[in-house]
Amino acid sequence: MADSKKNTGTIVTFGEVLMRLSPSENRKLVQADTMDFYFGGTEMNVATSLSNFGLSTRHVTNVSDDLVGDAAVAAMRKYGIDVSAVNRVDHPLGLYFLEVGASIRPSRIAYNRLHGAFANIDPDVVDWDKILEGCTYFHWTGITPAISENAYKTLKNALNLAKKKGITITADPAYRSNLWKYGKDGHEILKELVSSSTIFIGGVNEINEILGTDYPFEEDGFIEASKRLIEECPSIEKVFDKVRTGLSASWQKIYGRAWTGKQYITTEEIEVASVVDRIGTGDAYAAGLIYGLQHFDDEKALRFANAACGLKHTILGDVNLASVEEVLEVMEGNTGGRIKR
Amino acid sequence: MADSKKNTGTIVTFGEVLMRLSPSENRKLVQADTMDFYFGGTEMNVATSLSNFGLSTRHVTNVSDDLVGDAAVAAMRKYGIDVSAVNRVDHPLGLYFLEVGASIRPSRIAYNRLHGAFANIDPDVVDWDKILEGCTYFHWTGITPAISENAYKTLKNALNLAKKKGITITADPAYRSNLWKYGKDGHEILKELVSSSTIFIGGVNEINEILGTDYPFEEDGFIEASKRLIEECPSIEKVFDKVRTGLSASWQKIYGRAWTGKQYITTEEIEVASVVDRIGTGDAYAAGLIYGLQHFDDEKALRFANAACGLKHTILGDVNLASVEEVLEVMEGNTGGRIKR
Amino acid sequence: MADSKKNTGTIVTFGEVLMRLSPSENRKLVQADTMDFYFGGTEMNVATSLSNFGLSTRHVTNVSDDLVGDAAVAAMRKYGIDVSAVNRVDHPLGLYFLEVGASIRPSRIAYNRLHGAFANIDPDVVDWDKILEGCTYFHWTGITPAISENAYKTLKNALNLAKKKGITITADPAYRSNLWKYGKDGHEILKELVSSSTIFIGGVNEINEILGTDYPFEEDGFIEASKRLIEECPSIEKVFDKVRTGLSASWQKIYGRAWTGKQYITTEEIEVASVVDRIGTGDAYAAGLIYGLQHFDDEKALRFANAACGLKHTILGDVNLASVEEVLEVMEGNTGGRIKR
Amino acid sequence: MADSKKNTGTIVTFGEVLMRLSPSENRKLVQADTMDFYFGGTEMNVATSLSNFGLSTRHVTNVSDDLVGDAAVAAMRKYGIDVSAVNRVDHPLGLYFLEVGASIRPSRIAYNRLHGAFANIDPDVVDWDKILEGCTYFHWTGITPAISENAYKTLKNALNLAKKKGITITADPAYRSNLWKYGKDGHEILKELVSSSTIFIGGVNEINEILGTDYPFEEDGFIEASKRLIEECPSIEKVFDKVRTGLSASWQKIYGRAWTGKQYITTEEIEVASVVDRIGTGDAYAAGLIYGLQHFDDEKALRFANAACGLKHTILGDVNLASVEEVLEVMEGNTGGRIKR
Amino acid sequence: MADSKKNTGTIVTFGEVLMRLSPSENRKLVQADTMDFYFGGTEMNVATSLSNFGLSTRHVTNVSDDLVGDAAVAAMRKYGIDVSAVNRVDHPLGLYFLEVGASIRPSRIAYNRLHGAFANIDPDVVDWDKILEGCTYFHWTGITPAISENAYKTLKNALNLAKKKGITITADPAYRSNLWKYGKDGHEILKELVSSSTIFIGGVNEINEILGTDYPFEEDGFIEASKRLIEECPSIEKVFDKVRTGLSASWQKIYGRAWTGKQYITTEEIEVASVVDRIGTGDAYAAGLIYGLQHFDDEKALRFANAACGLKHTILGDVNLASVEEVLEVMEGNTGGRIKR
Amino acid sequence: MADSKKNTGTIVTFGEVLMRLSPSENRKLVQADTMDFYFGGTEMNVATSLSNFGLSTRHVTNVSDDLVGDAAVAAMRKYGIDVSAVNRVDHPLGLYFLEVGASIRPSRIAYNRLHGAFANIDPDVVDWDKILEGCTYFHWTGITPAISENAYKTLKNALNLAKKKGITITADPAYRSNLWKYGKDGHEILKELVSSSTIFIGGVNEINEILGTDYPFEEDGFIEASKRLIEECPSIEKVFDKVRTGLSASWQKIYGRAWTGKQYITTEEIEVASVVDRIGTGDAYAAGLIYGLQHFDDEKALRFANAACGLKHTILGDVNLASVEEVLEVMEGNTGGRIKR
Repeated sequence: MADSKKNTGTIVTFGEVLMRLSPSENRKLVQADTMDFYFGGTEMNVATSLSNFGLSTRHVTNVSDDLVGDAAVAAMRKYGIDVSAVNRVDHPLGLYFLEVGASIRPSRIAYNRLHGAFANIDPDVVDWDKILEGCTYFHWTGITPAISENAYKTLKNALNLAKKKGITITADPAYRSNLWKYGKDGHEILKELVSSSTIFIGGVNEINEILGTDYPFEEDGFIEASKRLIEECPSIEKVFDKVRTGLSASWQKIYGRAWTGKQYITTEEIEVASVVDRIGTGDAYAAGLIYGLQHFDDEKALRFANAACGLKHTILGDVNLASVEEVLEVMEGNTGGRIKR
Repeated sequence: MADSKKNTGTIVTFGEVLMRLSPSENRKLVQADTMDFYFGGTEMNVATSLSNFGLSTRHVTNVSDDLVGDAAVAAMRKYGIDVSAVNRVDHPLGLYFLEVGASIRPSRIAYNRLHGAFANIDPDVVDWDKILEGCTYFHWTGITPAISENAYKTLKNALNLAKKKGITITADPAYRSNLWKYGKDGHEILKELVSSSTIFIGGVNEINEILGTDYPFEEDGFIEASKRLIEECPSIEKVFDKVRTGLSASWQKIYGRAWTGKQYITTEEIEVASVVDRIGTGDAYAAGLIYGLQHFDDEKALRFANAACGLKHTILGDVNLASVEEVLEVMEGNTGGRIKR
Repeated sequence: MADSKKNTGTIVTFGEVLMRLSPSENRKLVQADTMDFYFGGTEMNVATSLSNFGLSTRHVTNVSDDLVGDAAVAAMRKYGIDVSAVNRVDHPLGLYFLEVGASIRPSRIAYNRLHGAFANIDPDVVDWDKILEGCTYFHWTGITPAISENAYKTLKNALNLAKKKGITITADPAYRSNLWKYGKDGHEILKELVSSSTIFIGGVNEINEILGTDYPFEEDGFIEASKRLIEECPSIEKVFDKVRTGLSASWQKIYGRAWTGKQYITTEEIEVASVVDRIGTGDAYAAGLIYGLQHFDDEKALRFANAACGLKHTILGDVNLASVEEVLEVMEGNTGGRIKR
Repeated sequence: MADSKKNTGTIVTFGEVLMRLSPSENRKLVQADTMDFYFGGTEMNVATSLSNFGLSTRHVTNVSDDLVGDAAVAAMRKYGIDVSAVNRVDHPLGLYFLEVGASIRPSRIAYNRLHGAFANIDPDVVDWDKILEGCTYFHWTGITPAISENAYKTLKNALNLAKKKGITITADPAYRSNLWKYGKDGHEILKELVSSSTIFIGGVNEINEILGTDYPFEEDGFIEASKRLIEECPSIEKVFDKVRTGLSASWQKIYGRAWTGKQYITTEEIEVASVVDRIGTGDAYAAGLIYGLQHFDDEKALRFANAACGLKHTILGDVNLASVEEVLEVMEGNTGGRIKR
Repeated sequence: MADSKKNTGTIVTFGEVLMRLSPSENRKLVQADTMDFYFGGTEMNVATSLSNFGLSTRHVTNVSDDLVGDAAVAAMRKYGIDVSAVNRVDHPLGLYFLEVGASIRPSRIAYNRLHGAFANIDPDVVDWDKILEGCTYFHWTGITPAISENAYKTLKNALNLAKKKGITITADPAYRSNLWKYGKDGHEILKELVSSSTIFIGGVNEINEILGTDYPFEEDGFIEASKRLIEECPSIEKVFDKVRTGLSASWQKIYGRAWTGKQYITTEEIEVASVVDRIGTGDAYAAGLIYGLQHFDDEKALRFANAACGLKHTILGDVNLASVEEVLEVMEGNTGGRIKR
Repeated sequence: MADSKKNTGTIVTFGEVLMRLSPSENRKLVQADTMDFYFGGTEMNVATSLSNFGLSTRHVTNVSDDLVGDAAVAAMRKYGIDVSAVNRVDHPLGLYFLEVGASIRPSRIAYNRLHGAFANIDPDVVDWDKILEGCTYFHWTGITPAISENAYKTLKNALNLAKKKGITITADPAYRSNLWKYGKDGHEILKELVSSSTIFIGGVNEINEILGTDYPFEEDGFIEASKRLIEECPSIEKVFDKVRTGLSASWQKIYGRAWTGKQYITTEEIEVASVVDRIGTGDAYAAGLIYGLQHFDDEKALRFANAACGLKHTILGDVNLASVEEVLEVMEGNTGGRIKR
């Protein structure tokens, strides 16, 4: 693993760290008196998974300058993330409440983040020049610019500099309609940011949102949409998507598909029949993809990403704690549950 | 929701409140040292679910005049049930122990209720005249008259008065052979009580028990049994049944069927593949039905009841805490487990 | 208890409901992965305790229109508080994190409340005319006007109307320097609000803060300060104080003292050597005092308040769940820990 | 330890086994959703402690023939008690709820036992001839005859036979006024049963209750009361008492005193400043005494009993799990809390 | 059940007792701060299950002479195992850590046993003459001789004597390649030990390992392998196997097959779709088989063993706590999860 | 805090990391089914506390190459310790079981460490040259050389090099008689190692053990012993001791005393009346001392160390998580338990 660190440089992620609070055992909040908690957030989830794969990572964020922020920093350090670019500020850490669904009952989330530490990030305080030293990959998602104008601007600065430095930029630009409260058009901003990025993690829905198009979901639609995206945002080289079929909250199927710029590739479907935790499965996919792109060809990278995504469904919390070896096993179809002694 | 309260009057329920005690995580009692507990009881479960749907409810019962009774009253209040007709007496609250099964292992229950607060209810103390003020629906089940002669007499008083007042009486008259210890013939008494009721919640088994008939389980049998029931108990207007297929303790399928007095109706089947808690699913059905009858036509009411029943399988404890919106979603087939943010 | 409800009318309280989140067993957050939670808030704590004493209470507040708000409302209902004046809004519920200290280590708190549901209360939405129907006591604290200008204005409206209606107004106007972020002078506003109130719950520190005076802590100082307060705010009739000596976070002593307008009275000191939870002990005192003023003479009221405060140190969470009987026992000196069978 | 088993024969105890249910961490039931549970009961507590001291014990009782009874039997077996004389019956196991007090708040108990498995014991089913084989000590308490007439009769049979066989009979005949519901005079029955016993475990209060006398609590009163007891019940040879001073529920002091038939003896006082669990401390004393009488002279036996009682205050649950070595350490004054590595 | 004890004599088992430590709810160790623990070990698991079926069992082992060993002994006593042949030694108890997998993620185990109490067993200390008194069945597995040379020698002594006494010897001789660290050839030793045994519990893999053969997995291969085994180890009378299909860690199918010396028999397949705990399912099979061989013909014995194995998948911990009645129900196909009231 | 890191260089610690396993709430293991766990070990505890004070630390150790070792590394990273010198080996991590005492009952410990990862450390693998780069303080304790000869040799290498480099070496050389199983004379070895050290953390007992002397405990004895130590081991400059009075396991008093080479200094006594956790209090003292020596004069350093030690008694687990600010507050006598908002 030390070797891979040397070869691959540092992956920098930027985004909000949230505390997740959740009653145990599928309870509704109204019938609980304790909650489990975890720290996560889509970009930190990616960093954690990559760090757990043995890569060097650095997460850039604001956390509160109180006992909650102390615990958030400790959670990042615990998984080996470099926290030297974490800033402490006098605003509370964002958080969300999760009632974990089961079977035909969906999970429900309530957020408390819009006036938090990250929303109040100051673009002038984040020293991207220093942070991006030694960085080979930079990862961002559509959540960050949706939180606040300051978050958007800070991200913009990062992308500009990263592009200049020739860093590979992975974008997971999902559009979340219940954010974007600060008066800007999310679609437009996302398109602007994607135009600085290298790898697009998303599919037909995300492309349609950003381009204002209307491609159908099926294979042809995906290919056409990908081509159009690359046409409009020519820095994008490849489009990696995952397709999920939800039989219920506890039973999900996923497979990966991609447009590599040259061809359409796809993976076998993985079935997860007793889901433990669905949060962060998309981030596990993104992390798997980044690892894959650094170590494998596109097809194997896509399969690695899909397997990582599948495994995350079996792990509590927001972050994928599966090792490279575990992902490879699932990727090779060893999903029968033989005990590892 | 305030509106629905105005329109629909108060639903009065009458029956025992039990404490349920259960080792966590499928443990057997012998391997546990803590237990989760919940307050429930078939009729209180109905009241809770209706209250949670935004309706006005009042539960009539006896609870112990000790710290356990305090907690029982608080549990009812918590969910918005009017507790003004709850009487405190110097007998312990009934309770039961539940070992939660899984897959091919059934759940096991041990009761401690026969000398409890509710069994000792005094018919002369319950002032039905006052309690039934503003009441539009009265709900009872076959458990209550099976507990003690006093419970039976108190229920009889209620039905007599409710009938006189034109209140809709919903009956869930399942015959429990392990109760009925006080020397009366349960079948006879149930028939007597059904003869004062309006809506029959039950199917072929329940009708056969009460009438001493032998109708087969299939559709025709159900229709014939329903017609015969209405013939013998002419106050009954409609018969609502649910049909359950248990693949295992963790995997159940249910659908609803009904004889509306004029026609046979039925619903799609709902499959719950990772059951969280099976207790109280019948009560969720009854509550769903009562809500449905107040707000929808018979067919939609039946579908609402079936969806409510399905959702309860995903909720811990005895009571259905799903909202009207959540039930409607399941009723419309949205069971794929998409997270609600 | 039904009798006391009739005699004493309804006590209305107004203030923020907070979720408290706390790692169990004295853990620091950084070493925990679950937290216990409770709903409280200084004015709701008073309402809960009074409700638990058998009195009629109504709490006025805003809570979030999400699953957290659902649980907050349920918590109030559970203890019998009338929630008809609770408004649901699209802002998150305020909350705080508590690391429970022990012995020589103090408890630490981190707040997340300044942009929450209560801070966003709309004075025009709260219909005091309706809310104060049947009200005999109105209770407020210095936290409320410190949260936001809207909260202050809403409180001001309440006091104006309550005064007009001749309602007894109890004020617990502690000055919290880490609030008051909206640009007003807290001392001035508190003085204005105290000038509409009847009973002052506080001592030399609180009076000095409000009047800008400098009275010493000792008995004479307290008497002089009280007289001066009544001079400057003539609606105030009596001043009730409690004096705490903290040997450690786990070992506290308290006694009560008061200026009744005519004389200085004081109580025996109560010693709590194994503190379970210090939060809300001041609110337990306020609730004990209100109960006492309704049922006893000033001296017994003061002793009841002091005993209630002492007992709260032995109860987990923010609210005092001791009954009138339990408080009377402590008040009579029965603190030897004999088991109640 | 094998040796002591050989030397001392079997100690037979007879009495109800209760499940104790208790919210954790001093919670009131109304604020909990889980409870810890333990099996105990005054006589089983004595058997457990003696078994833990390495002696041979047999407990005679009825438990329910359900999953709760299974767990009760397992709990006795776990600590090495011979369960061959435990009968399974179709009545629920008795139980009690405990809210654990702290500091100035006393613990509260609610019982559910009067119609349970033990109350329904059948004197004709208990084969004392077989049970008392190899028995050298028989222990009973005042709880047993207070539960039901059947329990009383079964005990009476035991005492008659034990006396005939020359077995040492230890009596802990506390009078519990909230039992004795079956129409007999408890004082009279206790006197009758004490008249068959050898060792009286109790003090002035117990003697006054039984004899209808009025001796004062102090040393002289104790000596006079003891002498009078032996006069009226000449089978009694010695009287062993413990004296408790409760500073609070969390802070207790105890010492032992005895009238050996010839002289008054007493022990140093043990102070327990952070009580973990007060339930069963009297039973720990009784067990310590029985062990002591078998292995030491009267004075050392009394000191051993007092130290065992003290240690029990530091152990969760109803039963004393301290070893002989641990009791001897406390008896020798090593109470400074040095870690045993 | 008392009857069956009389008829069947004592079953003696010999092997290591391990503490299992496992984070709750599928957590990885790195994200937990508590662990559940259980005592088990393949041979003790068999003893526990048989004891739970009402048979007389005695387990022979070494446990540590410290607080962990105390708890291990208590765990055996709890389930009714005779612990008179458990020796206490000054080495730590073996233990293992288990991360419970789910769905496509396998469980992971880390052991700490190679220098533990059992590995240090002294063949000269174990008095087999005394231990095998009244013994009709002796059970061993391939784990024991793999732990240490001393364990192997002690087992060898047992088998020699048991064979001489005509005791039925059941062998579960799975070869574990990650043990066998003390320099002996495991295959050879297992063959030697099987040559003293009566019943072979295992299938094609186990036979191939022991004989160095290469039979295919299918029915014919199994039959041929069984015949060959009996040829080479003529004391073996019958071969009982179970066949598992793992759809995932949470979804397993099993059926039994056997060569009775005369014919090939097989069972229906049991499907467990929501596995609670896979550890010890093989031991549940072995115990079911031993019970079956004592009470039924071979075919019913095999079906009982298979049903016992299936049920164990639904029970937490290492040991099968299902009763004979529960196993019979599953064996008869009642797996639909109807609640047992 | 960044500043202090720059000024003070890195503190290197060397020693075993242990997993501590402990039933919650003072339970004995035999009555528990879950345990809390923590990672610690005397030298890692020092590193953690120093890291928490904001200093740069590096811990040198072996941990197991399995899931337990993963969690151990994560625990060190979490608190900010540099883990680059942690080696992964194929031996299990050492661990210990702790039953937490209370009041008059002492805590009990059972170890499992003698064949663990650290005992098997290979002196040739540890590259001290690289590890001690940038190191200003090196800390060792008497545990390490007592574990195994390899551990001793590895430590010896470190001390030789550290001395050569002029690194300040702090020694906490307590003699543990229950270790030292590998055949060397512990007293001699400790003396040899102390002879390379700079600061002696210990008192009369430790000096007597090492020198074979017999100084009395009192002030004069301490001074004479210190002088003699410096005479015999002239690299030692100062001797820092703490004096503990244990009123009970839950009530402790401590003060510090030192011989600075020139004078005797001492501190006020700190009283901790409700001890949460006594483990690691000595390590908290050592860490406090090291911080103090880097930032204050000797007297203030001693007071800081004593306050840090006192605070650790209030924190769960092995490591002191108090901040510099918290220690300073206790040092200044603010121990009354006022809540920090």
